[in-house]
Amino acid sequence: MTEPFAAVDVIRTKRDGATLSDEQIDWVIDAYTRGVVADEQMSALAMAILLNGMSQHEIARWTTAMIDSGRRLDFGSLPRPTVDKHSTGGVGDKITLPLAPLAAACGAAVPQLSGRGLGHTGGTLDKLESISGWQASLSTDQVRAQLGDVGAVICAAGDDLAPADRKLYALRDVTGTVESIPLIASSIMSKKIAEGTSALVLDVKVGSGAFMKDAATARSLAETMVSLGSDAGLTTVALLTDMSTPLGLTAGNALEVAESVEVLAGGGPPDVVELTLALAREMVDAAGVTDVDPADRLADGSAMDSWRRMIAAQGGDPDADLPTARETDVVPVPADGVLLALDALAVGIAAWRLGAGRSRKEDAVSAGAGVVMHAKPGDAVRAGEPLLTLHADQPARFEAARAALADAVVVTPPGSRPPDRSLVLDRVVPG
Amino acid sequence: MTEPFAAVDVIRTKRDGATLSDEQIDWVIDAYTRGVVADEQMSALAMAILLNGMSQHEIARWTTAMIDSGRRLDFGSLPRPTVDKHSTGGVGDKITLPLAPLAAACGAAVPQLSGRGLGHTGGTLDKLESISGWQASLSTDQVRAQLGDVGAVICAAGDDLAPADRKLYALRDVTGTVESIPLIASSIMSKKIAEGTSALVLDVKVGSGAFMKDAATARSLAETMVSLGSDAGLTTVALLTDMSTPLGLTAGNALEVAESVEVLAGGGPPDVVELTLALAREMVDAAGVTDVDPADRLADGSAMDSWRRMIAAQGGDPDADLPTARETDVVPVPADGVLLALDALAVGIAAWRLGAGRSRKEDAVSAGAGVVMHAKPGDAVRAGEPLLTLHADQPARFEAARAALADAVVVTPPGSRPPDRSLVLDRVVPG
Repeated sequence: MTEPFAAVDVIRTKRDGATLSDEQIDWVIDAYTRGVVADEQMSALAMAILLNGMSQHEIARWTTAMIDSGRRLDFGSLPRPTVDKHSTGGVGDKITLPLAPLAAACGAAVPQLSGRGLGHTGGTLDKLESISGWQASLSTDQVRAQLGDVGAVICAAGDDLAPADRKLYALRDVTGTVESIPLIASSIMSKKIAEGTSALVLDVKVGSGAFMKDAATARSLAETMVSLGSDAGLTTVALLTDMSTPLGLTAGNALEVAESVEVLAGGGPPDVVELTLALAREMVDAAGVTDVDPADRLADGSAMDSWRRMIAAQGGDPDADLPTARETDVVPVPADGVLLALDALAVGIAAWRLGAGRSRKEDAVSAGAGVVMHAKPGDAVRAGEPLLTLHADQPARFEAARAALADAVVVTPPGSRPPDRSLVLDRVVPG
Repeated sequence: MTEPFAAVDVIRTKRDGATLSDEQIDWVIDAYTRGVVADEQMSALAMAILLNGMSQHEIARWTTAMIDSGRRLDFGSLPRPTVDKHSTGGVGDKITLPLAPLAAACGAAVPQLSGRGLGHTGGTLDKLESISGWQASLSTDQVRAQLGDVGAVICAAGDDLAPADRKLYALRDVTGTVESIPLIASSIMSKKIAEGTSALVLDVKVGSGAFMKDAATARSLAETMVSLGSDAGLTTVALLTDMSTPLGLTAGNALEVAESVEVLAGGGPPDVVELTLALAREMVDAAGVTDVDPADRLADGSAMDSWRRMIAAQGGDPDADLPTARETDVVPVPADGVLLALDALAVGIAAWRLGAGRSRKEDAVSAGAGVVMHAKPGDAVRAGEPLLTLHADQPARFEAARAALADAVVVTPPGSRPPDRSLVLDRVVPG
């Protein structure tokens, strides 16, 4: 076929700081998906976008073009309103695990189609795969049936969901073009819009363990995504939440599943409970479900029931023992005092090096590996007591994990008081 | 082997506006040559360099790394001093053809290792290949012997001359990363330094038919290249020359050879003679040859003798009839008056579309195709008289060539006088 554009002209347009036309955007995404625009051309364009930016209109068109590169699901015929949550990724961020069944227990349907974790942030699918028998792959018919029956599905996105994004995401990862708000926002939103949810709650992380290190950048990303969702007809809201220290007391796959089950059982770390409830309330509101308080559904065990049904529906055994790592190593508290900081990025990298994450998408992850924390910032600690327990299958991994943690821990003198830190920093709604 | 860097970290360094270390530059060029850094990574880096720039030190290191990716020739044992000329490329720019034998006739040795033309500017090798029997490929021993004997060689650069540049040049062409002074300067100078010349005269073109459209950018490129050459121990000087209208009265392969032979025979268009002599004087000076005026060597026929020996030494027959295109088409003067402008870029694109140039490096070129001009800016012209004759093997090509020329010709009323235009605009020497 004759191509209406040359890739090099599209690249030059953005390189020279001009605005890409709708036709250029539609073509370049489609031609990249078809292989007519080569990887080396798309990476040059991605770098030009990263450095020269895109207008909100360009981002919206780019997002739509990525959606149109594949199939857009439609769950409009379900009796329950659909609503999903997306987190930009953090350390110890197991919130999806208790949240999806909790929202389902409140009467919503949660069609969460997820990707795999890469780098220091864990992947939800990797966590759930530590449950014996649980399967990440479902057909669209299975997703629809489970949404109607259980109300919550967490599964792998099919190859036909925004395939252009799938290809571009892998390319950006190796070409230094990840950290671009237009490219991050369009990547996330193309998948979430294509998965067919009617409402969306975004958890945009801020801090060392997040992609966005500062609140201004995180807010800008949140505003961009909320606009994209809203323009596409989704009820969309975002919370900015703290990711300077890990969420909860675990980072790892099976370790985080166990902690999530504690939350569903009415216990668990206060920060995980707080964020789960805050996001559940946003989801319930966005879905238009009234007269239900997620805290009640957590307290009365109905969220746990939904969890058990959701796991079982995908072949998992909710009563099976979770895998554990073969070896452990304890990192002691360095001094008496108050734990001021436990850095999220350092703990994330440590967990990754222990085997919980992958460097390349072909890598396998260890179900049992990770970090268990015995204190959180603000807690009083005593020198020599266990601060962290590292879990790994190979003891050779401990050294690299300890190296990552070298500067992660700050203890201030006894009696000092760390500054109060809010978990939910702000809320972003359509402008 | 274990790599000392990750490509993505090198890309991020330049993306974020920082300076690449010597070790990063050495590694990324070497690893790209080895295929460890992928095309899509190098194109992202090239775009970051284009948009964020490089320091003079970075450019010099980048150039050296590209030289070191291959072999550096050494003609220090020749009895004649070596000097070469490089033009940044223009329309009708056949100057190398009379210039190399003229410099040889003055006592210098000219080791010109060339590439192929791409786009609207013609390639020297393509022009010479219109001479029956002439061969572009020589071994290094053949180059050395011909330099000692004839004093001039124009041949294809071997695969081992700056192979990193060869690979990068092809990549830049398809990724919108050509127009970067650091990348252009390092590409040119890596090849010229590697070819082993002791002195170098640069012809940096300015105007519509050149890569550099304005004098400030051209001067910046010239200064960058003069510094690179000088720092590498080459006597280096640059002339900024006008490329708003084609050089001479022909643009094409055999057409330009014929015009070059006219110059060597003592005739030819005044602008071609002027620039050939200006560059020859710079070459003779840079080579340290004294007491010889290139004009004398042109007038006494010794430059023509060198030409004939240079062509014959590479298998060509200097007396053979040159190929001609099968079809011609005349573009008439649109109105009585004075020719104010005949746009270089338009004529270059027309010649290219007629078959004189190539779009992809695999394409063949037509020896006879091109444009013959019957007037130059400043000439009085009469409506209906021939202004241009288009030459092509297929008459179907004329329409596209005429379309390229639609706005190329400006005729002002009879008796008006176009502004004086200098051919040599400026001279740049080491700072």
